[in-house]
Amino acid sequence: VIVTIVGAGMMGSAMAMPLADRGHVVRLVGTHLDSEPVDAVRAGRPHPGLGVVLPEGVRASPHETLQAALHDADAVLVGVSSAGIGWASRALCGALPRALPIAMITKGLDVRGDDIAILPDVLRDALPAAVRTEPVTVGGPCIAGELARRAPTAVVFAGRDASAVRRFAEELVTPYYRPFPSDDVVGVSVSAALKNAYASAVGIASGLYERGGGTPGSVAMHNLEAAVFARAAQEMEGLVRTLGGRAETVRGLAGTGDLFVTTQGGRSTRLGRQLGLGKTLAEAREALGNPTLEGVEIAQAVRRADLPLLSRLRAILFDGLPADRIFETP
Amino acid sequence: VIVTIVGAGMMGSAMAMPLADRGHVVRLVGTHLDSEPVDAVRAGRPHPGLGVVLPEGVRASPHETLQAALHDADAVLVGVSSAGIGWASRALCGALPRALPIAMITKGLDVRGDDIAILPDVLRDALPAAVRTEPVTVGGPCIAGELARRAPTAVVFAGRDASAVRRFAEELVTPYYRPFPSDDVVGVSVSAALKNAYASAVGIASGLYERGGGTPGSVAMHNLEAAVFARAAQEMEGLVRTLGGRAETVRGLAGTGDLFVTTQGGRSTRLGRQLGLGKTLAEAREALGNPTLEGVEIAQAVRRADLPLLSRLRAILFDGLPADRIFETP
Repeated sequence: VIVTIVGAGMMGSAMAMPLADRGHVVRLVGTHLDSEPVDAVRAGRPHPGLGVVLPEGVRASPHETLQAALHDADAVLVGVSSAGIGWASRALCGALPRALPIAMITKGLDVRGDDIAILPDVLRDALPAAVRTEPVTVGGPCIAGELARRAPTAVVFAGRDASAVRRFAEELVTPYYRPFPSDDVVGVSVSAALKNAYASAVGIASGLYERGGGTPGSVAMHNLEAAVFARAAQEMEGLVRTLGGRAETVRGLAGTGDLFVTTQGGRSTRLGRQLGLGKTLAEAREALGNPTLEGVEIAQAVRRADLPLLSRLRAILFDGLPADRIFETP
Repeated sequence: VIVTIVGAGMMGSAMAMPLADRGHVVRLVGTHLDSEPVDAVRAGRPHPGLGVVLPEGVRASPHETLQAALHDADAVLVGVSSAGIGWASRALCGALPRALPIAMITKGLDVRGDDIAILPDVLRDALPAAVRTEPVTVGGPCIAGELARRAPTAVVFAGRDASAVRRFAEELVTPYYRPFPSDDVVGVSVSAALKNAYASAVGIASGLYERGGGTPGSVAMHNLEAAVFARAAQEMEGLVRTLGGRAETVRGLAGTGDLFVTTQGGRSTRLGRQLGLGKTLAEAREALGNPTLEGVEIAQAVRRADLPLLSRLRAILFDGLPADRIFETP
């Protein structure tokens, strides 16, 4: 099977591992921002973001090659970040030779006022009818650096086309990468998008603790982190239900699982720590080296009165609410 | 209000903080194993487990004083560990002067084959009719060392007597200790008891990772921890439902919240790490200094086919299943 991965960032590239280990032909096509990883992979050097050398069979190439990389492909894996989904949609519109099974690891939401659309639907609707398919979206705990090192995990593959879901799951399963099929594309997509924002909320406690003079250890405001974590899971579940997804999805790998792994490290949690230390969003961004902060975009875009924890995070990020107010008062 | 705490261990003693800060008279009565903390608190020295000096008004005394400490008390807080609940029940039977409101932080289950009883019911049923009340049980994320340092948290007070629940919540709430009332005593009790076992399951990944030569950092089998965490939350929910509690309780502070905080440290998680390192239960116990391991007792006692993660943990603990089998294969 020939699989073309669109996007050579950390997550897209890490997906080459289970694909190559299953013997598939893997073509890794970078975006216009991916020349560094593409050059590294072509030269047999470690992927600069992942720090590992990809398997020998993986062929990397620049974005100009997308059409050629798709002409005889059996499946597409969209591996761009949420910022790249517009580009990827347009590129696929022009380059897809026919209707191909599409899986996507891109996490995000398209929010316009009260209208919230999930990215698999945005991508599907952007494709010309002749090449349109129902994308399969990937959720669950999956830090790219761990996948690239074949550290074990379990994930969720969700989509409205059950046979496409099953096919991707069967072609990617390895002892370390275990996809569980689901039809709840809304639940998986919303969970994947929200978890970055909520991980920032959880991370605030560690910053508050350090600011108060505490040092890491068994006493470190883990109680408060845990209280925020529990509320976050409840709120994610509420929004998923409202948008037509299933609460059980949030309670599983795609919701609780992904939120947990995100709180164990990652940019979103480090942003929370900076806020807890008393920094403004601008100062926190700078302290982190100005990375893309998908959770901040979500907190800004999703404005609903029935998400009080997210609303408090937004007030801390944008309106000067003190970070120690992240948890509700009874 | 005069509150008598039975048990001067870490958690019982830490509860003196919100009680004393709310101006209540606090009498801390040790068990026969608590002479060290009782002596320390009486001498104004730091509590040996908590490392902090309790507020001045807190009076500590040995178990022989229980009857005197209860004669004019307005409420009782049972602060023993699960191993001490039998002693505490018997002691209260003889020492309670009348029916007093009882709160309990003891976490555990009374398992006899397929019959599973929650400790608030065990305590209630052990009391003579003349002094019997419906105990209020305390759940949610609450590491004793953090509470003793007034680090913020939010907890759940649950019981069948709504006015007792409300009264305890009102008398204990402080800016750092926020009790949310609940009537789901089964959900809170079962979650509190199971979380230690499941935290051991979550902790296995870090040991597996170290055993494989890994060093702590952002790549540390957090994916696997997270996958196990998600499954644990699902299983806890299943058992709570079966026993007549509510799934929502597990999804909140008492379930997901308490499980989260337990995985961020604590004996149960360290036991998991030792198992992941390849140690037997006996070796792991020894490496930890032979502490009480409540999760091990739960894993041994609760044998149900509908709890496959707990069953795999039990097989790892007692039957030599390799620790890397903790997660299911699809």
